[in-house]
Amino acid sequence: MKKTNFGDMPCPIARSLERVGEWWSILILRDAYYGLSRFDEFEKSLGIAPNMLTRRLNGLVEAGLLERRQYQERPARYEYVLTEMGSDFRPVMLALMTWGNKHFAPEGLSIYLADERDGHQVDPVLTDRQTGEVITREHHVVRAGPVATDRLRARLDRYAQMRVAGSLP
Amino acid sequence: MKKTNFGDMPCPIARSLERVGEWWSILILRDAYYGLSRFDEFEKSLGIAPNMLTRRLNGLVEAGLLERRQYQERPARYEYVLTEMGSDFRPVMLALMTWGNKHFAPEGLSIYLADERDGHQVDPVLTDRQTGEVITREHHVVRAGPVATDRLRARLDRYAQMRVAGSLP
Repeated sequence: MKKTNFGDMPCPIARSLERVGEWWSILILRDAYYGLSRFDEFEKSLGIAPNMLTRRLNGLVEAGLLERRQYQERPARYEYVLTEMGSDFRPVMLALMTWGNKHFAPEGLSIYLADERDGHQVDPVLTDRQTGEVITREHHVVRAGPVATDRLRARLDRYAQMRVAGSLP
Repeated sequence: MKKTNFGDMPCPIARSLERVGEWWSILILRDAYYGLSRFDEFEKSLGIAPNMLTRRLNGLVEAGLLERRQYQERPARYEYVLTEMGSDFRPVMLALMTWGNKHFAPEGLSIYLADERDGHQVDPVLTDRQTGEVITREHHVVRAGPVATDRLRARLDRYAQMRVAGSLP
């Protein structure tokens, strides 16, 4: 099914997708943020076939997003816990939640992010850590880094020209 | 291949994945942010088979993220342009880029986000739009909204208890 190896692409988005670019994996991570860690918990939450769940959990362990830990000796039982890399994925998940809440929740909110200290509903927005400014298409632009390929560089040059010319579709 | 309808789940993350939970779709959107709009541009950029590209573009149009516009009469030619919903997906993409740059770019950066006004490299971080505070696992928590199912509510209650007890894995 998956013929292309996205991990070989220079783009960090493509490389990220190689690790988690699959529905089930992302929903397993979502459940891990909710505190689920055991096979039967994920199985029950997701309604996923056991062989599929085993495959996805192993994939997330191999990719470095989950760590497999034994929590019982006889019989041997394991739990799956977020690694630092897995925890770092949380903003992607929250951005996805925000987008889903905006566009695909016509009947109202099923979940939302809250500030635990006063309970207010949080609208998560991407900002510049240094200046605190909200990131916009107007002021913020993707640029080629030091190890960009010539092809990527050419594409980003063209993008920059289109921006300047105001001819972005 | 895809047996479960994620769009029927109440979770906004699952519903979002139903629209874009697929590698190619996300890379097509990435290229759309770079200003690509024509079939042959996407084909060249992605190295994707034409029938697969047609399927993915149609999927993104049906899902409401891209709009198909005729730009030439004879022969009829179309371009694919981001809708508002498609543009709103950009923070997810930037969050994914940030995660990829942190974990999967050991040789250095291939792309990065810059502030166009002074050129400084931007570290995109998710904040509370109202308070400007960075979102952390310590202070921010996912809560059940008004239309949460009983099942989701039970899961989030358990999560809240684990947080309070300090027993999150």
